[in-house]
Amino acid sequence: MNETYDEEGTYNKFEEAYQIIGKKWVCLIIHYLLNEPKRFSEINSLIPSLSKRVLTERMKELEDCGIILRSVITNRPVRSEYSLTRKGHNLGIALQKVESWAEKWL
Amino acid sequence: MNETYDEEGTYNKFEEAYQIIGKKWVCLIIHYLLNEPKRFSEINSLIPSLSKRVLTERMKELEDCGIILRSVITNRPVRSEYSLTRKGHNLGIALQKVESWAEKWL
Repeated sequence: MNETYDEEGTYNKFEEAYQIIGKKWVCLIIHYLLNEPKRFSEINSLIPSLSKRVLTERMKELEDCGIILRSVITNRPVRSEYSLTRKGHNLGIALQKVESWAEKWL
Repeated sequence: MNETYDEEGTYNKFEEAYQIIGKKWVCLIIHYLLNEPKRFSEINSLIPSLSKRVLTERMKELEDCGIILRSVITNRPVRSEYSLTRKGHNLGIALQKVESWAEKWL
């Protein structure tokens, strides 16, 4: 990523951020992980209209851009859990401003 | 819109907000209108990769959901200008938090 603080670089960062949060369901997934880590099945049940296939895709994308972390819990039964990284948590906090807007204006 | 502050109603509002800002280019358009009203051509030149057709669509959608206002300036040459409504301005302020996140983390 171009680190220099130039007009062009900054707008690329904004566009990149808006591409990340623009993907359907991403913001809601981040919203649900903000308070605590969750298992795939828990997230899937919280967003009924989101298919398992799309949720799998979104989780992979979010993992790839360092917004969520997948951990394997080894004690029986072995299971995996998703949590926000610091980067993801900070995005979640920023998105809460959009949610406050929504509660007021929609 | 369901005014009662229930779990279901709130998440519908979040989903609605994320659908609005999830549309490609919407956040950048709001970003550029945050400081001052602009003409269609000005917005179009600020976002070169956005086609006139898609920009026209986005402006109509944003007008329909009360986020932007289109005013006709009657002194010669007659032209139309777009500005954020209070609702739109508040969304722009909320989105600035996402932009600060982007500057720090991307």
